[in-house]
Amino acid sequence: MGMTLTQKILAAHAGLDKVEPGQLIMANVDLVLGNDVTTPVAIQEFKRMGAKKVFDRKKIALVPDHFTPNKDIKSAEQCKIVREFAYEMGIENYFEVGQMGIEHALIPEKGLVVPGDLVIGADSHTCTYGALGAFSTGVGSTDMAAAMATGQAWFKVPEAIKFVLKGQLKRWVSGKDVILQIIGMIGVDGALYKSMEFTGEGLASLSMDDRFTIANMAIEAGAKNGIFDVDEKTLEYVRAHSERDFKVYKADEDAEYSQVFEIDLSNIPLTVAFPHLPSNIRTFDEIGDIPIDQVVIGSCTNGRLSDLRVAAQIMKGHKVHPRVRTIIIPATQKIYLEAMKEGLLEIFIEAGAVVSTPTCGPCLGGHMGILAKGERAVATTNRNFVGRMGHVESEVYIASPAVAAASAITGKISSPEEVIK
Amino acid sequence: MGMTLTQKILAAHAGLDKVEPGQLIMANVDLVLGNDVTTPVAIQEFKRMGAKKVFDRKKIALVPDHFTPNKDIKSAEQCKIVREFAYEMGIENYFEVGQMGIEHALIPEKGLVVPGDLVIGADSHTCTYGALGAFSTGVGSTDMAAAMATGQAWFKVPEAIKFVLKGQLKRWVSGKDVILQIIGMIGVDGALYKSMEFTGEGLASLSMDDRFTIANMAIEAGAKNGIFDVDEKTLEYVRAHSERDFKVYKADEDAEYSQVFEIDLSNIPLTVAFPHLPSNIRTFDEIGDIPIDQVVIGSCTNGRLSDLRVAAQIMKGHKVHPRVRTIIIPATQKIYLEAMKEGLLEIFIEAGAVVSTPTCGPCLGGHMGILAKGERAVATTNRNFVGRMGHVESEVYIASPAVAAASAITGKISSPEEVIK
Repeated sequence: MGMTLTQKILAAHAGLDKVEPGQLIMANVDLVLGNDVTTPVAIQEFKRMGAKKVFDRKKIALVPDHFTPNKDIKSAEQCKIVREFAYEMGIENYFEVGQMGIEHALIPEKGLVVPGDLVIGADSHTCTYGALGAFSTGVGSTDMAAAMATGQAWFKVPEAIKFVLKGQLKRWVSGKDVILQIIGMIGVDGALYKSMEFTGEGLASLSMDDRFTIANMAIEAGAKNGIFDVDEKTLEYVRAHSERDFKVYKADEDAEYSQVFEIDLSNIPLTVAFPHLPSNIRTFDEIGDIPIDQVVIGSCTNGRLSDLRVAAQIMKGHKVHPRVRTIIIPATQKIYLEAMKEGLLEIFIEAGAVVSTPTCGPCLGGHMGILAKGERAVATTNRNFVGRMGHVESEVYIASPAVAAASAITGKISSPEEVIK
Repeated sequence: MGMTLTQKILAAHAGLDKVEPGQLIMANVDLVLGNDVTTPVAIQEFKRMGAKKVFDRKKIALVPDHFTPNKDIKSAEQCKIVREFAYEMGIENYFEVGQMGIEHALIPEKGLVVPGDLVIGADSHTCTYGALGAFSTGVGSTDMAAAMATGQAWFKVPEAIKFVLKGQLKRWVSGKDVILQIIGMIGVDGALYKSMEFTGEGLASLSMDDRFTIANMAIEAGAKNGIFDVDEKTLEYVRAHSERDFKVYKADEDAEYSQVFEIDLSNIPLTVAFPHLPSNIRTFDEIGDIPIDQVVIGSCTNGRLSDLRVAAQIMKGHKVHPRVRTIIIPATQKIYLEAMKEGLLEIFIEAGAVVSTPTCGPCLGGHMGILAKGERAVATTNRNFVGRMGHVESEVYIASPAVAAASAITGKISSPEEVIK
């Protein structure tokens, strides 16, 4: 029996011809990633292990993106630990404030992941890079420490669920709606420790940004990783961002999947995940008048240029509702610059939104848009657990940039059609 | 004996023909100001007094500018208190995230202060509006509460120090250098409970933004207020921002001053206030190589359009030093928009700086750029007390936007001439 796409990448990185689901392997990693929250712990572990230098100065990326520019002394001290370690070890991919962005948007933009790579990161949304046909998964700080020292990590080979995509998304519907529908269908543990592999003729119609969004939220279904077949769009993206050689892997024809779902993209509706689980999805025929206090458009899930373009398209010429704080967070400095040059930021400011420095702050209740008791936000982020964006009695409604932008205008959870007739 | 400019405004607002230094008066206020730190306390007092409504819904301004977009649950709860009070009382000048800016830049921009006004604000830098020929001073939250209820406040009539300006500033030298030199000369208590009145032929050469900066830092010399003679530039500014009627007051010819200083603007050098007092000034002949970790260009002192223009002029075509986090904070949404349209923000981002939402956060160690132990910042802010921008072992060097921008490029405290030959 053949191997899935994920299994093939794992086998190659373990120097094995074949791996089986459940097998424990030691594999070489192509990139080890950490942020300002997880890296200080990893550095402590790294030193406790007695490690003196990192395995490869080019294959570690440190991105202080959570509480930067620093919101308090504690976060400043955390960043200082990361910075000093980066300089001490000569780590090439340390990204200072002003050169950085949200890690999962920055890493692909910098060309640090190519198809077939094996990437680990001490952040659960490291699964994002599966959009590029890489195996990429979140680990704890201890695993990050060990990998920084040795260049290797242990894995239990996952089995996989196959999602065969067909058709094409309707107007305003995006990758965010696709992944929310999938999580709604299989549940937040529906892919527990499994790969979610995306394939099929429908793939061609999905932009890279849609794929990043879908892979990013694989973890919200409990998956070990999300991964996409490599096609022309992937190759075009990779060629534009990286000069590295790479190998494109494909699942064997006779690979075994624990489940296979066929998804007709043309049937995917605009979707909102209600509190307090990403699987608690509703469509607009089930959503009444729900007034909101804040809108966040950004995060590792939906802070990319195409996300900002959609939001600007909807907000152009409108004013945000006077009671809705609308926070736009371009995911990287590059995206910020491009959005400014395209006139998107001007549209946001004219509409009465603020445009933040790149940070994942509000998504995890840490920075730049925290909710008070009883407040409600529509956010393009990825989690809406109790208290995720602030007070335990606040609420997060997860949606696409299109829905978030429309909601900012109307002051309640709204579909884009309510704003653009 | 006649009255000073400040005394005349106070007398008029107290309904008296004449006031004397030291006299206690009750005066009508034209505007009562509060922010997200001080207003919640004032609201508590307001309710404790049994007040049911505010004296005038048009004459109160509430600006949540310190920890917004909110950095944590506590700051979100503080803002919620302010917001709910503003809506409950029908306060017209409540400025939500997206419509706001740093209070002392926003209030003049919105035309809420005109010459001859009497303004109090629960923030020490309320003295800023003296640039418009208004009496304006910082008060505690209890005074703010009483004034919101009654429209009045008690004052002890101050005596005054007169600063007679002549000449013209040299290239790169700004209002910031003028006020730092004055504070250096008279000390941080040099004007304790006095008015600092600025007059003379040299006034004409100072931009409104320079005057705002100078008046803003009057409190750093301990002054009750700083105030400028009204001239054509003032009138032009006021006509462009407000439709209110106003009366221009002038000091009597025979007014008495406790001190008179003549300042030749052409003799003012580029000036940096070293830790840990604004009076601890140095000029570049006394400054060696002092490497820095962060630059902040912004604040109620220096976050206006002309400040950003100077910074952009210096940073254009350069890259900030890789180890210097450079944080640019346009003081209001309007300034942000104008700076974007002029291409200034593009210059900053291209140079490797970040551009923040409007906030006074870093100045007071509260948000958006806090320092870790041992770190040094050059900042265009107004205070450099121990621990002001973060850790008690961090250091703040106060300077003009020109010096801050040059320092960001070189990585050490630098004059603009080191960057622009």
